[in-house]
Amino acid sequence: MEHMSGCSDDLVSAEAGSLDACERPCIHHDRVDKVRGVLLADAAADGLAEIFSLLGDRTRVRILHALSLGELCVCDISAALGVSASAISHQLRLLRTAKLVRARKEGKNVFYVLDDGHVHSLIAQGLEHVLE
Amino acid sequence: MEHMSGCSDDLVSAEAGSLDACERPCIHHDRVDKVRGVLLADAAADGLAEIFSLLGDRTRVRILHALSLGELCVCDISAALGVSASAISHQLRLLRTAKLVRARKEGKNVFYVLDDGHVHSLIAQGLEHVLE
Repeated sequence: MEHMSGCSDDLVSAEAGSLDACERPCIHHDRVDKVRGVLLADAAADGLAEIFSLLGDRTRVRILHALSLGELCVCDISAALGVSASAISHQLRLLRTAKLVRARKEGKNVFYVLDDGHVHSLIAQGLEHVLE
Repeated sequence: MEHMSGCSDDLVSAEAGSLDACERPCIHHDRVDKVRGVLLADAAADGLAEIFSLLGDRTRVRILHALSLGELCVCDISAALGVSASAISHQLRLLRTAKLVRARKEGKNVFYVLDDGHVHSLIAQGLEHVLE
């Protein structure tokens, strides 16, 4: 298998003491088989990477963090973050398309919430990790 | 306040029926004050966005998902994912620097685990969201 011989070649050239690679090949077939058995399909891996990419923006994480405190209308988000409503609307559209937020219209106003508990948890866990 | 008058101007031009903006200004001061009281500092928002940006890559999410199943050496990850060890090493270095994974050396081999439960949860929650 090409990637296994490639692995071995890479290892020989690995710097002694480096944490980047093993200094000798050491494939644990039981572990590799276990991982292969539940390997992410391309579509799932791409979907996951897309969601995280979308979250990788300062304004969008601030919007999602604000919404993790409760429902807000577009004007509320704009006022709280000090960012123009048109910029907020643009970001909300992206977040809505990715199903990270949900909108409901009430009269002439539009209220937003996080789409589900997963999004709440992503922001909370990410933040705990950063603040640690 | 500039962003509030900006908000109002934007609203007037909002398309009727659109979910992107309120059709008339409707700032809820109690909600806005609540959000402002716990607004993410710039450093926290940037740190969070950086972590998510780093996660926004197909190979990196596949590595993290594989590690969410248990400890693996660099060769194991390379073999399981069918990606060269040098490419895996490069990604692991980035993930290690961001404290998303931890390495331990045992003899001539280097084993990786997820850095903490937050990283495990980020991958699990993100995946549940994508697969729903």
